[in-house]
Amino acid sequence: MNKTGILIVLSGPSGCGKDTVLSQLIDSNEDIKVSISMTTRAPRAGEIDGVDYYFVTREYFEKKIADGSMLEYAEYNGNYYGTPKAPVDEMLRNGISVVLEIEVQGAEKIRKLYPDAVSVFLLPPSLNALEYRLRTRGTEDEETLAHRLYIGEQEIKRAGEFDYYVINDKIRDALDDFETIIRAEKLRMSRNKNVISEVINNV
Amino acid sequence: MNKTGILIVLSGPSGCGKDTVLSQLIDSNEDIKVSISMTTRAPRAGEIDGVDYYFVTREYFEKKIADGSMLEYAEYNGNYYGTPKAPVDEMLRNGISVVLEIEVQGAEKIRKLYPDAVSVFLLPPSLNALEYRLRTRGTEDEETLAHRLYIGEQEIKRAGEFDYYVINDKIRDALDDFETIIRAEKLRMSRNKNVISEVINNV
Repeated sequence: MNKTGILIVLSGPSGCGKDTVLSQLIDSNEDIKVSISMTTRAPRAGEIDGVDYYFVTREYFEKKIADGSMLEYAEYNGNYYGTPKAPVDEMLRNGISVVLEIEVQGAEKIRKLYPDAVSVFLLPPSLNALEYRLRTRGTEDEETLAHRLYIGEQEIKRAGEFDYYVINDKIRDALDDFETIIRAEKLRMSRNKNVISEVINNV
Repeated sequence: MNKTGILIVLSGPSGCGKDTVLSQLIDSNEDIKVSISMTTRAPRAGEIDGVDYYFVTREYFEKKIADGSMLEYAEYNGNYYGTPKAPVDEMLRNGISVVLEIEVQGAEKIRKLYPDAVSVFLLPPSLNALEYRLRTRGTEDEETLAHRLYIGEQEIKRAGEFDYYVINDKIRDALDDFETIIRAEKLRMSRNKNVISEVINNV
């Protein structure tokens, strides 16, 4: 019955563990995929083009904006990040739920474009925990780290714009909460109006 | 954090298994209770006053309507059914989620009074399955049964007014779906605005 997939917007401050939660979500759910974003920022150690992001030049990204093939995009920390539209729409049509891991600014745009989208904000247990994780990752110098923390706090203050929150204290619990939200949303009447005639007509 | 309970409205046609799903839900969730309705209909075999319903006279029910102590009430099959308001509000304040098992007409009223309420419609797998269950219960004569089936179909046609649906084919799955909906609703940002300041202030 759930012929159309659900578009899920996932946001959360840098360092809150979005990538870890998402990779485990995908591993355990065949009918959920992550949309691969496009960015102009430089790859971090271990990141693979076409897997973590499509890493492109500013010129290429701006061309894609101009020809209308970006679902959303935002400039963040001096770099473009965005979602190519066509692959997302195709997956949804095929009954695949698609997670967009995007910044708070992008989430706002998606909610306007897809009123049926479900938005989830991943929260760290505290700002201290967020700082600890960013330091442990060790990929940024002090200045970048301070800037990321500042931006993180600003993002958390906008978490109220989202439909749901998940606190990433223990990864297992966070994954469980995220899956619960998606399962419940599949039982929404507004996504399944046909279920009524199916029961009445005994199909 | 979930200091206030969730008000859950459960409707579904007579015979779809609401009582069975609810009694199992209550047994396995300490923080969920069922509101006991008041009715003027006669008790069925095995029904206990104060447990299944408060069985009262028409005069008493009409007095309660008049003094404003009913949350909702409706006349159905020639009898009054309704929910006394005070015990529901008290449970919600104490962090208990309360399920109101009510008719479709009553559900409409609750949604207006409590915009945060979550409404769930329990569907039989088909009308044939519903008829089979009503016959198996064997508590009605043919005429009452035919009338119940007719009303059941009219109710199912209004299922689209509800937030969620659950199909009661296998009781275990229906219970699981119902619990999933309640768990997800507890993660709604609109019910937990304080979570943002808690993360920022590291309480």
